[in-house]
Amino acid sequence: MKKVVVIGGGTGNFVVLSGLKNYPVELSAIVSMADDGGSTGILRDELGVLPPGDVRQCLVALSDSSRLMRNLMNYRFENGGLGGHSFGNLFLSALEKVTGSFEKAVEEMGRVMSIKGKVIPVTTHQVRLKMILNSGKVLEGEGQIFTSTEIEKGFQSIFLEPIPEVNRKAIDEIMNADLVVVGPGGLYTSLIPNLLVEGVARALRETKAKKVFIVNLMNRRGQTNGFTVGHYIREMKRFTGIDVFDYILVNNGKPKKELIEKYAVEGEMVQNDLTADSRLILADLLSEVKSEYQDTDVLAKHRAFIRHDSGKLAKELMTIVTHI
Amino acid sequence: MKKVVVIGGGTGNFVVLSGLKNYPVELSAIVSMADDGGSTGILRDELGVLPPGDVRQCLVALSDSSRLMRNLMNYRFENGGLGGHSFGNLFLSALEKVTGSFEKAVEEMGRVMSIKGKVIPVTTHQVRLKMILNSGKVLEGEGQIFTSTEIEKGFQSIFLEPIPEVNRKAIDEIMNADLVVVGPGGLYTSLIPNLLVEGVARALRETKAKKVFIVNLMNRRGQTNGFTVGHYIREMKRFTGIDVFDYILVNNGKPKKELIEKYAVEGEMVQNDLTADSRLILADLLSEVKSEYQDTDVLAKHRAFIRHDSGKLAKELMTIVTHI
Repeated sequence: MKKVVVIGGGTGNFVVLSGLKNYPVELSAIVSMADDGGSTGILRDELGVLPPGDVRQCLVALSDSSRLMRNLMNYRFENGGLGGHSFGNLFLSALEKVTGSFEKAVEEMGRVMSIKGKVIPVTTHQVRLKMILNSGKVLEGEGQIFTSTEIEKGFQSIFLEPIPEVNRKAIDEIMNADLVVVGPGGLYTSLIPNLLVEGVARALRETKAKKVFIVNLMNRRGQTNGFTVGHYIREMKRFTGIDVFDYILVNNGKPKKELIEKYAVEGEMVQNDLTADSRLILADLLSEVKSEYQDTDVLAKHRAFIRHDSGKLAKELMTIVTHI
Repeated sequence: MKKVVVIGGGTGNFVVLSGLKNYPVELSAIVSMADDGGSTGILRDELGVLPPGDVRQCLVALSDSSRLMRNLMNYRFENGGLGGHSFGNLFLSALEKVTGSFEKAVEEMGRVMSIKGKVIPVTTHQVRLKMILNSGKVLEGEGQIFTSTEIEKGFQSIFLEPIPEVNRKAIDEIMNADLVVVGPGGLYTSLIPNLLVEGVARALRETKAKKVFIVNLMNRRGQTNGFTVGHYIREMKRFTGIDVFDYILVNNGKPKKELIEKYAVEGEMVQNDLTADSRLILADLLSEVKSEYQDTDVLAKHRAFIRHDSGKLAKELMTIVTHI
């Protein structure tokens, strides 16, 4: 079986893994540990645990257990002291407390959820993502970076603090992969934080695996305003050193006009300016129905309705896999 | 296989079930739904769920899953908005929210925990336990009754509000049992609340099952002050109508003097005044080691160190079972 490694964090990973799970490939998800917003941020602050949110999404995506169990893990409490917490986040954090190890917690939750594949934190160190803007202002934490509208004016640097040690298993997965999938996901909040862990960018340069970049559907206002596909590729190159991608997967489907209008406040669609690039794969990748994910996660209900379709993404990725 | 039904709530049930689980009997636990203290009380108030605490303890006791999973379910968060919540309580409450049914939640958690036997809420209605003292003061909720030190001065009535409908499955279990075990446990907070649900006392009178009452080791100051074994039996009879018990299991082991002194604040040991009663079974039932339960539940650490030994209890109960 071909080995596919997915790198990211957040809902993007969820969509890619959910789709690929239905195909005969060996799956691994490498997950950023920079998340510090919402439920995850509260758990980090109050319990001193590693961020569970992105890992939980990957575990649910890879789960072969009942729909009920998957819904349970994405369920968010709505009231009181528990309000906003995803149950799956609490599951991981309680397991981390009981086992004394985040990695063991991920493994055990994987067992309970009967996951197909592996979920690997890119580091098991406590880190914070920081960004110094051109104005000199320092954004502390992924949460602040995610909500900032000043990033489009440029930034001097983005880094993890303290400098974390890479999880060797993440490097091994990349080096032994047949295909590495990066994206979709928040450029500065989900994708680049993985590349900031020393060793990851080098592994991407050195691995014999083919590498595909899945370009986001939408730009984020104040962050990636007006970014074209070319911008995304160039921005990734800043952090990987050389342009590592063999394929660039770009949506060419058109969402309904009313959806675009509805999302104009958050951002506009990413335009493709790379028509002559031979690495480009154009396809309609848009989701038409509300996913199961949205039904159970009250926060996700407020997320984009313009989103990738996991089945369409997986189909394109499997076309690549069968040709390598 | 003989059918054994255990009635109660709280830690008493946990100890009896943990012991009996290791023998070839068909086990059911009928659990009071009156709990409203601590983590359980907060979940009832904030989420509107049925009380998970006692059910969770029974599920853990009957679980055949790994020690890690059992520890996880008894794990209590220590800090922040989650502080004091048992993870297993959150598990049940989230499942109740996702499935829309407490009974389905219990069933599903039983599946995840690979339980041996059944856990049956005595009712699936939302009820509050209330007590009117002789002074006219009304104690609202199990929590208030549990911490009251005025009950020893007598009470006019104890009742559930609103009047709940019994869970038919609980009645069926009692009617089809070979042995029904009542106790140990808080007399007014765990045992009698089951008998207040209409139909339970009648089933205890009418079933052909043998019935055994396990007398508490310790009295509770302000509640059962100076109660002898005879007092317990008479108090139970007030709620079952006739004296239903075929066996009365009483500890005759002596705890270390320093333990008795340590617990003098909470209460004294129950003295046996029923020497001539042919139903009496006397045995050393004391636990000598800290149980696994105490290791993982931060609140349990503050509970009695003078406690029943699950192995010794089960041995005596199995002697009864093999003779019926």
